[in-house]
Amino acid sequence: MNSEEFRSFAKAAVDYIADYLENIRNKKVLSSVEPGYLHQHLPQEPPQEGEPWQSLLQDVDRIIVPGLTHWHSPHFHAYYPTANSHPGIVGEILLSGLATISTDWHPDNVCVALEQKVLDWLAKLLHLPSHFLNTSPGPGGGLIQNAASDSTLIALLISKTKKTSETAPDAKLVAYTSEQSNSSVEKAGLLASTTIRLLPTDEHGALRGTTLLRAIREDIASGLTPCSVVATLGTTGTCAFDDLEEIGPICKDFGVWLHVDAAYAGAAFCCPEYLPLMKGVEFADSFCFNPHKWMLVNSDCSAMWFKDVTHAEKVFDRESSGTHFWQIPDVRRFRALKLWFVLRVYGVEGIRKHIRKQVDLAKYFEGLVRGDCRFEVCRVSLGLVCFRVKGDDRRTQDLIDRVTQRKKIFVMPYYFREKLVIRFVICSRFTEETDVLVAWEEIKSQVEHNLDG
Amino acid sequence: MNSEEFRSFAKAAVDYIADYLENIRNKKVLSSVEPGYLHQHLPQEPPQEGEPWQSLLQDVDRIIVPGLTHWHSPHFHAYYPTANSHPGIVGEILLSGLATISTDWHPDNVCVALEQKVLDWLAKLLHLPSHFLNTSPGPGGGLIQNAASDSTLIALLISKTKKTSETAPDAKLVAYTSEQSNSSVEKAGLLASTTIRLLPTDEHGALRGTTLLRAIREDIASGLTPCSVVATLGTTGTCAFDDLEEIGPICKDFGVWLHVDAAYAGAAFCCPEYLPLMKGVEFADSFCFNPHKWMLVNSDCSAMWFKDVTHAEKVFDRESSGTHFWQIPDVRRFRALKLWFVLRVYGVEGIRKHIRKQVDLAKYFEGLVRGDCRFEVCRVSLGLVCFRVKGDDRRTQDLIDRVTQRKKIFVMPYYFREKLVIRFVICSRFTEETDVLVAWEEIKSQVEHNLDG
Repeated sequence: MNSEEFRSFAKAAVDYIADYLENIRNKKVLSSVEPGYLHQHLPQEPPQEGEPWQSLLQDVDRIIVPGLTHWHSPHFHAYYPTANSHPGIVGEILLSGLATISTDWHPDNVCVALEQKVLDWLAKLLHLPSHFLNTSPGPGGGLIQNAASDSTLIALLISKTKKTSETAPDAKLVAYTSEQSNSSVEKAGLLASTTIRLLPTDEHGALRGTTLLRAIREDIASGLTPCSVVATLGTTGTCAFDDLEEIGPICKDFGVWLHVDAAYAGAAFCCPEYLPLMKGVEFADSFCFNPHKWMLVNSDCSAMWFKDVTHAEKVFDRESSGTHFWQIPDVRRFRALKLWFVLRVYGVEGIRKHIRKQVDLAKYFEGLVRGDCRFEVCRVSLGLVCFRVKGDDRRTQDLIDRVTQRKKIFVMPYYFREKLVIRFVICSRFTEETDVLVAWEEIKSQVEHNLDG
Repeated sequence: MNSEEFRSFAKAAVDYIADYLENIRNKKVLSSVEPGYLHQHLPQEPPQEGEPWQSLLQDVDRIIVPGLTHWHSPHFHAYYPTANSHPGIVGEILLSGLATISTDWHPDNVCVALEQKVLDWLAKLLHLPSHFLNTSPGPGGGLIQNAASDSTLIALLISKTKKTSETAPDAKLVAYTSEQSNSSVEKAGLLASTTIRLLPTDEHGALRGTTLLRAIREDIASGLTPCSVVATLGTTGTCAFDDLEEIGPICKDFGVWLHVDAAYAGAAFCCPEYLPLMKGVEFADSFCFNPHKWMLVNSDCSAMWFKDVTHAEKVFDRESSGTHFWQIPDVRRFRALKLWFVLRVYGVEGIRKHIRKQVDLAKYFEGLVRGDCRFEVCRVSLGLVCFRVKGDDRRTQDLIDRVTQRKKIFVMPYYFREKLVIRFVICSRFTEETDVLVAWEEIKSQVEHNLDG
């Protein structure tokens, strides 16, 4: 493929994506293809000779796209958002084309310098404590990770190394998180060979100080050594916020590393009105949020900050040169470029507008649900509404089953306080009031069916 | 930014990349900007309002590109290649635009199905044992990882879990690798809390069976429990090949997990003439190579196969559902798309041609060096030539310093067998004989200067 063919191929791909996103509203959000259909469409062996690029684009359209779950459909209301924006895509085009990688964390490298700069922009945008800034006089700093799960693992590994250096080498370490935290915390515990205690939460799903304090005291009494707490701002199930103002001082008193996972909800802290939700964040030793979730930067782009990077250096720097990344893989793509693009094309005001619009749409949906006496709203937090059909769980389960089978909208079930609820999340940046209304009509039509049946 | 602006912006970015790659030969391979210059060009605060896209492209050209190391310059001969190809870039455009992510490893998901298919294609292309195929009747399989360092960590974690289940819970585990293996193996040992013994190599830099056997016996005698070996095919320093035919049976005898890291050299196994270099690969429990190094798939795309995935499932599957990824992060981008594109646009023959051409260029360079009595060639392996100025190391160091300062070509120093050598690697797919000649002239001009001085 020569340069001219590349221009044609790449521009055809750009048009394909533009068309796809313009028309995504008309697609069923879930695919209807039969299991195993892809294997029928593709040969068992790789092609011996090269093929013309046109056949690849045709196959994407013919084989791949019909099988996709459309995460950017305005009718996708499952999980949490995964980001996709025009400047995010163009950032990926450029970083793929320049295809430069960084092998150390040295600010003379322009890719590292840009990453440090935009991570500082991001910390300021989210009103994070200034000790996290790369340019702060102290030992703090931030960088891009692959995923929030990497950050959790890294925080556990650091806290382990730190605590082990302070105690007997055979100390039995224990870490804490809430029963509502993401399953990746348990996974990180497995990978880091660290026992994780899942603590109960209050009626809103938040981890409270008294619960943590009791657990720490019990464990110390049984000869264990508490080493870290993974607190969540915006839990996966119900977008609950652990109480950092209570948890933080306890971590400080017991010399326990406090990692804060704000993977989804972190983006909201660009709006001053949500800052009360992260009160106590100044106690965090490390903080993670995913611009690739709710902040319009295409995956992968997860941000992680440290109050004091020297602890991370002790884990990752084999030669004490201080220039290794505090990350699992050994090289890194130039992902700062797409983050830079998104921040500049949207600007602070554009990002705030995006967050506020999505929260408003969730409130709009909440109002619709509250206006119908067959339903009850269980929790509303940021872009998430948890609701259910009144009465036995089976009614809610039937509704979810019917709606999922029809593939017009995509929602997820969740058990909260021993009741089945439907998680309805505003995910796509294309979602408008009319789409929320479509979703609500779809839900109503199926619950009516359900109650009749 | 609306869809029309996106089309313009993205197509301008495509043209920028096409122009950049067409003209990359004319740029100095190393940047000349002053340290800290980026911070002078960018404001301290993120922009309040959005900016027009044109200013972003201008800033990439004005601020970013002048600061880059040009990894795809035909005069870049450092490290090993990092991949960049036209179909690889277009694959990234499409996967960024579709922006679908996978949350589990279920073949009904079209993204997972494509990944399983192209990993099978890849295994066949490399002539790997059929027990690695996703479609094999046995429990083998492969998937894409972020990096070879992730694969090493995963292999260590699996072997730890497996060995711990077979022995006393307080067994002191030990893993082995050669002193020539990549530093990421040591890092993986730190992260996995596993002691790694670095074993000496033979005169070619290869780990041999007798060395491993001695170490295992010593350790067992001292009460340790050997759990894994990380063998390398194509070491970072001198592209040496550990002897799998000797190592494999020892691992089998002692129930030790054999992980093979062929990050760079793996791509060569698409050519039948290089298959002798991986004799004994059938003993490997896991095998990793990076299509994002020498096989034209833009980063990140590292392939990892398991002979028996059930061991991996025990580490990663919290709910025994068998659908979790055997990887560190919890979600994955649709990277199979770019691998699929590269395999189809190049075809098997195109990829072989690429590998053979780069090996031939290395041989061409070797011939030039051998023709000059001031130099000695220390090792040639695939696309790498290790050579030095005869005599004291200072002469070689001076040469490297001068050449690096002039920024016309980029080579790396390496200490091998207590002598300083220059690693000269054919990295860029744009490199031609004329470029190799340019590099050789540059080297000769500086060594002459050097010997005069």
